[in-house]
Amino acid sequence: MYTGRYRTAYARDMTEFEKGPRGQRRGRGARERIVSASQQLFRDQGINRTGMNEVCAAAQVSKRTAYQHFASKDELVAEYLRRFDPDVMPGVFDRADLSPRERLLAAFAMPASTPLCPYIAAAVELHDPEHPASQYARDYKTAIAARLTETAREAGARNPEQLGEQLALLIDGAAARTRVLNHDSFPTAAAIAAVLIDNAIPAAPSEQSSDDRRAPGSAPVPIGG
Amino acid sequence: MYTGRYRTAYARDMTEFEKGPRGQRRGRGARERIVSASQQLFRDQGINRTGMNEVCAAAQVSKRTAYQHFASKDELVAEYLRRFDPDVMPGVFDRADLSPRERLLAAFAMPASTPLCPYIAAAVELHDPEHPASQYARDYKTAIAARLTETAREAGARNPEQLGEQLALLIDGAAARTRVLNHDSFPTAAAIAAVLIDNAIPAAPSEQSSDDRRAPGSAPVPIGG
Repeated sequence: MYTGRYRTAYARDMTEFEKGPRGQRRGRGARERIVSASQQLFRDQGINRTGMNEVCAAAQVSKRTAYQHFASKDELVAEYLRRFDPDVMPGVFDRADLSPRERLLAAFAMPASTPLCPYIAAAVELHDPEHPASQYARDYKTAIAARLTETAREAGARNPEQLGEQLALLIDGAAARTRVLNHDSFPTAAAIAAVLIDNAIPAAPSEQSSDDRRAPGSAPVPIGG
Repeated sequence: MYTGRYRTAYARDMTEFEKGPRGQRRGRGARERIVSASQQLFRDQGINRTGMNEVCAAAQVSKRTAYQHFASKDELVAEYLRRFDPDVMPGVFDRADLSPRERLLAAFAMPASTPLCPYIAAAVELHDPEHPASQYARDYKTAIAARLTETAREAGARNPEQLGEQLALLIDGAAARTRVLNHDSFPTAAAIAAVLIDNAIPAAPSEQSSDDRRAPGSAPVPIGG
């Protein structure tokens, strides 16, 4: 089941399909149908297990039409990843009702059915850091870390870049482990995040819950050491 | 480059190939060659991108021979994962020169070229928690967490199961993120691990690198808990 964590920008386009004069779907619709079909198939059965024939059948386009829009499957894969909403995780980061600290923790409140990050999946399947899609994957991962860093700064973290990168790694770890174990690992990641956030952000006198204990004298450790 | 983090049990069998009477490789050698070829191909180019034809060519066996040993590619994939050394990460956990606390940290001192955990890769590629290989993946991941838990208990952690599971998640996060970003994320994971270990293990006044320090009353436990 797809829970919408990874929102696709083109989802907004889906209502814009237009019918041609004789009721046939027109060109622009074809391109969107191809991308939409690939999105569902890549997510549900993997990139490498999905052939162009299958995409064409699901999109109701001819192979000729498909190759007019995408010169190769690699191009379609790149477009599939490029289309994920660049405004990362708006359901978390744009919540004005939460404090910055709460928004950082909310990033780990994923439903158990959240699919593996499509960028991790693509990186595994493509096996090629030079693939045109790989740069989109890196960009997205960098964008997530940047939003976490920005929120950590708002929350008053001593070293927001470090906390942002650490929390981004936790999200990826929970996603990967959930996939392998077929068991929700986000609660474990959330517990780690709480420790890191408590260590990185000086607590307001009454804000911290009583069972959050910080080891005296434990200092932040720099990234990359 | 393969650095040997994921040691394969069958690597020890590679010297045991035997020649038949006319210098042809005999049956037992064929099975090992098939598994060995699959191991290299699956790792280097992925499971789904590797066909049985390719495995047969690399292993120098006929397709008929291959299917005598493995009824399907799925069976070969399961065997590939089953063969990874069940004695997980011996280069870390069996180091008598390190204190338990140091062994926990050593689990994050991976070379930058460490490949993505083959179990994460397989889980992504297979897209099927019911695949015969998926249980091996879960078993291995559980075994890693159990060894971390055992070491955490030796080190005197207040809640060793929790710390073990947390550290296991960090390793998976670093592996996944390193793959996507094509940049070593293990130092970030190591920094998080240091914070978690400091929080979970009461620090002795002057201890950092002295020998085995066991909390009073904590006893070694068998793997698999």
